[in-house]
Amino acid sequence: MATAADRRFMAAAIRLSRKHLGLTGTNPSVATLIVKDGVIVGRGVTAIGGRPHAETEALAEAGDRAHRATAYVTLEPCAHHGRTPPCAEALATAGVSRVVGAAADPDSRVSGRGYAILRAAGIEVEEGVLADEAADLMAGYLTRSVSKRPEVILKMAASADRMIGRPGEGQVAITGPQARAQVHLMRAEADAILVGIGTALADDPELTCRLPGLESRSPARIVLDPQLRLSPGSRLVATIPVAPLYLAAGIDADQSRREALESRGVRFLATEIDGGRVALPELLDDLGALGFGSLIVEGGAAVAEAFLKEDLVDRLCLFEGPGEVGSGGIAAPVTPASVPARFGLRFETRYGVDIFREWTRMR
Amino acid sequence: MATAADRRFMAAAIRLSRKHLGLTGTNPSVATLIVKDGVIVGRGVTAIGGRPHAETEALAEAGDRAHRATAYVTLEPCAHHGRTPPCAEALATAGVSRVVGAAADPDSRVSGRGYAILRAAGIEVEEGVLADEAADLMAGYLTRSVSKRPEVILKMAASADRMIGRPGEGQVAITGPQARAQVHLMRAEADAILVGIGTALADDPELTCRLPGLESRSPARIVLDPQLRLSPGSRLVATIPVAPLYLAAGIDADQSRREALESRGVRFLATEIDGGRVALPELLDDLGALGFGSLIVEGGAAVAEAFLKEDLVDRLCLFEGPGEVGSGGIAAPVTPASVPARFGLRFETRYGVDIFREWTRMR
Repeated sequence: MATAADRRFMAAAIRLSRKHLGLTGTNPSVATLIVKDGVIVGRGVTAIGGRPHAETEALAEAGDRAHRATAYVTLEPCAHHGRTPPCAEALATAGVSRVVGAAADPDSRVSGRGYAILRAAGIEVEEGVLADEAADLMAGYLTRSVSKRPEVILKMAASADRMIGRPGEGQVAITGPQARAQVHLMRAEADAILVGIGTALADDPELTCRLPGLESRSPARIVLDPQLRLSPGSRLVATIPVAPLYLAAGIDADQSRREALESRGVRFLATEIDGGRVALPELLDDLGALGFGSLIVEGGAAVAEAFLKEDLVDRLCLFEGPGEVGSGGIAAPVTPASVPARFGLRFETRYGVDIFREWTRMR
Repeated sequence: MATAADRRFMAAAIRLSRKHLGLTGTNPSVATLIVKDGVIVGRGVTAIGGRPHAETEALAEAGDRAHRATAYVTLEPCAHHGRTPPCAEALATAGVSRVVGAAADPDSRVSGRGYAILRAAGIEVEEGVLADEAADLMAGYLTRSVSKRPEVILKMAASADRMIGRPGEGQVAITGPQARAQVHLMRAEADAILVGIGTALADDPELTCRLPGLESRSPARIVLDPQLRLSPGSRLVATIPVAPLYLAAGIDADQSRREALESRGVRFLATEIDGGRVALPELLDDLGALGFGSLIVEGGAAVAEAFLKEDLVDRLCLFEGPGEVGSGGIAAPVTPASVPARFGLRFETRYGVDIFREWTRMR
């Protein structure tokens, strides 16, 4: 039976797991707490880059105190052997007597086996404590394990009169500084961010994370650019040392433009082109195969509409500012009132004067 | 029943599939031939980058002639829907009356379903024609689909007296120009190539493909470099515009060295370090998750030994030159006489004066 204390320690572990979100490569950002007699004696989070795993770090800190302690793990411990023993075995070897787990691992090499190794070693196992809360932070990893595609997060900001900007005016400030900081935090925690070539040409954005100290957490940038119209002089190209830039293009894109971009470090994703547009499901399959767990779609309106229409959005994040764009604006492709019924509202808050709402697709 | 003509056309399709080996990203290099009344009316190979698939190209070339034709596919046609229809459906829509397939696709979204779609459409299906020959060229894709790790190809060249070189003398010419050209072709067809830091420091290699016209087919380079000893002035770093360079290092590697390398475009793979060495199985797991299907291990001796000892080698390629290195040489970690019993000899030939032998691990 999970106790109130179990839930409290698991909540602390989940908060800790957030620390390396977006920084652990193809591994999920997981946390482990080792608790002895009600006191935390070891804590670990998946290292930047994905290894070592959280259990290794927590057990190292706990040392002998892990003996007869309880371990809180936000994800089922790994079960497959490498040079180092699987984390489930490491917990058993350290003499932990009880393991409380949150999310189960759908990876076919782990699924159920991590917990089975623990039980076979005589360890008491409590599964599924705050599982939804833990899974929420690992949605990218879990989605990619199951569907082989990244989790798609559609993010939009609209004015009080449901506009996202004005044609030809580039980026318009719809939301205030707190909301913008939140957007940059979302970028820091994601593996990749995507826009259409229209947005890339109109706004000349960087799509990096510009929160002080978090610049190195900028996600990979992906532009849907079937005909390779992006300029080698764009800010996206200039910021390649900060974060990789991929252009999703067709094989018939101009070879000399391709070479000019490649010589500046741009990478190509060969995509199916259908009716002049990048085939999105195929692109998501390929991004999943390349190890991307989470993808923020930032626009523009046509791109957002396409992802929604093809039912490719897992999470919908809408910011609403108090100002008005007025006549001649670009209508928001989705508003709180028009969110499709397959989405459920998960979260609502304010960032300064702006409202933020988050929906997830129900399964 | 497969006929002699079926096997002949399939052999031609398999030869065609080789064309884009190492160039199709996370998709396998597959070929399709459409044959009508004994004449090839359409041919296709997976496009560079991985999309479109071979069937699309072959059906486009065949046009109306695909009606009541036979399609030869080196891999089971894909079965999952994207924006474009799955290839199995495209073959049915084109009116193909018979499909001859070589390898089955282990991808859980395809496995058996591609052939099932064809049969449900009333198409006669012949599976498994020259399946081993086709699978051989797709070993990287098939290995990664099943084991989630790249196929590991250990390549070594030894002198007649079983030496691979002399300490401190850098690269020694063990084999002649034909064998060296073959090595560069192997590089062109692989996704990645790996050496230890000892080899990287001693030889200052490029590890690129230097066959005229095939430079752009150079694989990603990976160096086991736990402490980041590679110089930012090395040839490996200088050739990053030709092919990506990854250093597999521990999280405790020096931060300032890391930043100096990163600013030159080097990428990091965070790895478990065990006894001062990179934990290889965990590294292979992560390379598989990043989409690498095939990995050539080129040395040095200690790295080759570690891969063999840990049973991580799928394919063993040994070149044997006629010259002698003499006393003071570095002994080959594996020789034709010492190949472990788990490997079976698959192939033996000569390149000029050198002997080439290839073994694969038996399952």
